[in-house]
Order: sequence, then C-alpha cells, then structure tokens
Amino acid sequence: MKKIRAAVVGYGNIGHFALEALEAAPDFEIAGVVRRDPSDRAGIPAAIPVVGNIRDLSDVDVAILATPTRKVEETARDILALGINTVDSFDIHTRIPALRDSLSRAAIAHGAVSVISAGWDPGSDSIVRTLLEAVAPKGLTYTNFGPGMSMGHTVAVKAIEGVANALSMTIPTGTGIHRRMVYVELLPGHELDNVAKAIKADPYFASDETHVFAVDSVDEVKDMGHGVNLVRKGVSGKTQNQLFEFDMKINNPALTGQVLVCVARASMRLRPGCYTMIEIPVVDLLPGDRDKWIGRLV
Amino acid sequence: MKKIRAAVVGYGNIGHFALEALEAAPDFEIAGVVRRDPSDRAGIPAAIPVVGNIRDLSDVDVAILATPTRKVEETARDILALGINTVDSFDIHTRIPALRDSLSRAAIAHGAVSVISAGWDPGSDSIVRTLLEAVAPKGLTYTNFGPGMSMGHTVAVKAIEGVANALSMTIPTGTGIHRRMVYVELLPGHELDNVAKAIKADPYFASDETHVFAVDSVDEVKDMGHGVNLVRKGVSGKTQNQLFEFDMKINNPALTGQVLVCVARASMRLRPGCYTMIEIPVVDLLPGDRDKWIGRLV
Repeated sequence: MKKIRAAVVGYGNIGHFALEALEAAPDFEIAGVVRRDPSDRAGIPAAIPVVGNIRDLSDVDVAILATPTRKVEETARDILALGINTVDSFDIHTRIPALRDSLSRAAIAHGAVSVISAGWDPGSDSIVRTLLEAVAPKGLTYTNFGPGMSMGHTVAVKAIEGVANALSMTIPTGTGIHRRMVYVELLPGHELDNVAKAIKADPYFASDETHVFAVDSVDEVKDMGHGVNLVRKGVSGKTQNQLFEFDMKINNPALTGQVLVCVARASMRLRPGCYTMIEIPVVDLLPGDRDKWIGRLV
Repeated sequence: MKKIRAAVVGYGNIGHFALEALEAAPDFEIAGVVRRDPSDRAGIPAAIPVVGNIRDLSDVDVAILATPTRKVEETARDILALGINTVDSFDIHTRIPALRDSLSRAAIAHGAVSVISAGWDPGSDSIVRTLLEAVAPKGLTYTNFGPGMSMGHTVAVKAIEGVANALSMTIPTGTGIHRRMVYVELLPGHELDNVAKAIKADPYFASDETHVFAVDSVDEVKDMGHGVNLVRKGVSGKTQNQLFEFDMKINNPALTGQVLVCVARASMRLRPGCYTMIEIPVVDLLPGDRDKWIGRLV
C-alpha cells in the first residue's frame, strides 16, 4: 500500500510529538519538517529533511500544522493553494465556524482537504460531546479541564509587570467551573501582593477563583500532563437520569500530535472541503481497511 | 422542514422506547407501528396507526427494527426491498461483518440505506472504542459491563430444567472479566443445588464466576438499569501511559431506542449501502444543520 507523505509545519512541542506519532504510524512516510530556521535541527532525526518552505519538499500529501493558533488560517491557505491537504489544532472555540468557512472555500478551489481544530479539545472531546448530546438530547454537559497547564492563561500572566516566568494551572471544581493556581517567578524589586492583584484583575482571571504563589523556579513545577472530565446527565427519549462520564489523564502535546496524525490520515478519504472532527466517521481515523476495524471494534 | 417519516417494527421493550424517542424528536413524524398482532394496541397512543405489514403504512422513509436480533436480517431485507431505509440494534458481535455484507447488497440494489448494530454495545460504545484506539494506537481496551441484566444469559437460565423464571445480572470485576449473579424462581420439586450445578455447567456460564440464588419473585429484583465502564491505557505516538475512561449508568432499552432514532436520522444523509455507527460522522446523529452543532459542540 502506498504510504501517505506528511510534512510537519512548525517544530515546537506539538511538532515534536506529531513527528513521533508519524514515526510510529504504519501508513505514513515523513516528507520533512518545515520551520522558520531550517538550520536548527535540534531533536529532529538526521534522515528527515528540514526546510524553510514546504515547496522545497517533494510529493507532500498532507501538512500537519504545528504553528501557533493565530497563524493557522494564513498558513493553511498558502498550503491548500498548492493542492496539499492541511490539518491543524486551531483552538479558539468561538472562531471555529469562521475558520471552517474560510478554509472550505480555499480547499474546494484547489481540490484539497482541510481538517481543523483537531486536538483533544476541540477535537476528540468534541466527538464525545456530540455523541452524548445525540444519545441523551435533553440535558446538560459539563467539560471539566485539568489539573493541567493552561497555555492561554500562562501567556497572560507572563505579560504582567514584575513577572519573569509563570505557570497557570487549571483545576476543575466540577460543573465546568475552574480554579486557577498561578505560580510566578518574580522580577527583582516586585512584590507578590501587587503582582497577584494585577493577575486577578486580568480578564483571563477576573471571573475565576485564582490563587497566586511565588516560586523560585517555574520550570521545576511544570509538567505536560493534563486531564478532562466530561459529564452529561440527560434524557433519552422520555427517560430521565441517563448518566455519562468521559475521563482522561494524558500528556497534552503527545495526544494532540497523535490526533493530528489521525486526521491527516482521514483527510486522504474526504472529498475536497474543510471539516471538523465531528464531521468525520471515527473509523477513518484508523489505518487500513474499514472492514478490519468493524470486525474488531464495533 | 419536511419531517422524516419513521415506522417502528416490533413492539417489545425496545419498540416502546424507540416510539417515545420518536415522539420527543423535533424532526420526525411517526408513520406507525408494525407488529404481529395489530389489534394489540397496549401502550401505543391512539393517534398512531398499528398495522401487521409495513406496506399498509404510507410514505415510510425509515423503519426502526425492534425485532429480536435473529429476525433482523430477514426483516431488513424485506423492508429494504421496498426502498425503505432500515436501522437495527443487531447485537451478535461476531456476525456483524456478515450482516453488513448481506444488507449492503440489499440496500444498494434498492437505493436504500441500512444502519446496523446501533444500540449502545454494539453502538455508541463502538464509537468510543474506535476513537480511543485511534488516539492511543498501542495499548489495551477493556469494556466492563454492568451491573445490569444480561438478556442472553437470562434466556439460557430459563431453559434449564427446574427453573420457572430467572434473572442473570452481569457484574463487572474489571479488565473485561465479569461475575454472573443469577436469581431463579424454582419449579416445585426442584432443588437449588442441582439447578445451580446445571447453570454453572452451561457454556454461557462455564468460564465465569457464577453465583446462583433462589428468590420468591424474579420480577421483584429486576430493573432495566445497566452500566458500562470502558477503559483504555495506551501509547500516543511514543508517549506511554495515556489514560482514558468512559462510564455510563443508563436505562438500557431507553438508550437503545434513542440511538436507533439517531441513526434513523443519519440514514437520510447517507448514500445507499449498509453502515455501522463508526462509519457515520457523529454530527449526523443530531437533528438539523451541521453548522449549528459545529458552533456549539466542537
């Protein structure tokens, strides 16, 4: 069977783990890594080409975008214009419909496929949320995140005066409500009280219970684990009290990297257009013939 | 928007709950109920036609088969031949691929769609199993059932000499291993010891830890609740120890009835052929436009 040739675009945490997932996948060939500074090969196996522009790689079927979320649309449009599929883990929930519209037009114009917002939330969690909404149509779903690092909140803390380095942990307290535990390295001459006040006034934190602590080294308290506890209680037909719960405890970028590889595979089976994960049959996330999986997993 | 016209074929437990789920669904119209004795209207609202043959109902888009599993293939072929979609909750896991092949040919020949094995296991659990296999491709999944009544095991006990009535409960003990708790009403002149010995020797029970109890009334200890605890521990890319768990505690036939209505809806969007639930985008289990759900659930 012909292997799928994939490029990894961007080589931060997600790029690293996406590359590992490609190496572990039986049906992929790595076309190369695309990064701003192609001379920086740190951590990339010697056999893998590293280039500054995807045009310098040959026969790429699909590009896995491991760029910052805000760069996704522009990068995807450039690559779709080459007739190459793109997949990304764009994670600004409110802007997903607009991104889908935009990339849908670009993908169709060039006979390519784009799969967006394919990480774990949005991503695999979205599939579980959708399934539970379908099987218990009336009711409430709560997605509880953590314990784990919030990238967005951490960046917000780092921007506050007096902060040298920071980590904002998301702690679930149930029913979709979260506590923020913030660890900061202070710059000399700054006091914790003032920094804590500024953090708590920031729009990222203003409506959540927030605790701020000074630490000597943020690096020493940081890990990449994360968690989800997704709960739905609802009504199937006219029957109340149907109870569902999905839990995971995972290495965050490793799961995102793996999901990106799954949707890169699925992109090869879709008609031109732009898709979120809830629009893709789950069996197409797996390698090889559907029939094998139907016998094993249904 | 034109409503989907559905018929319920068979009116036992599943038929009853499927009818309730249709009544609760915003996008369905009930064409009628098909049952062996159409004069028996017990529990069926007066406005709903009850007939002995689906040909006596008008403009049926999709038939929800609530017949015994062993009748599914024959019933589905008859109805598909009329160009009417069928959905079922066929639950003999090992025979699903063969049923799919057979109904696929029948469906394509008549321009219709069949969705098979659409309950909760096989069914919604299959979607979760497939998703977790994709996002952590190496590892082990255990599906733990119960506490809840096993239909197959209960029928097997009822066939044993000396048993007037029976209930076999499935109790999960983890890693896919189950205990059987069996409650029997004895016929006069029979002893528990002998009946228990016969039950434990039956192929349904021979390899499981089984306990047998005599009760005055099986009906008094019976409820329709059931549960699942589905666990996967695996590897995403090259990262070990990714932990996932899906739990539910549900009214068994109510969930099956609701899932059948979800796939009846999805059948209207599929090309002719036969599908299991893992081959259907989850968003198509929900009513109305995809766009609305993408904004809310992704």
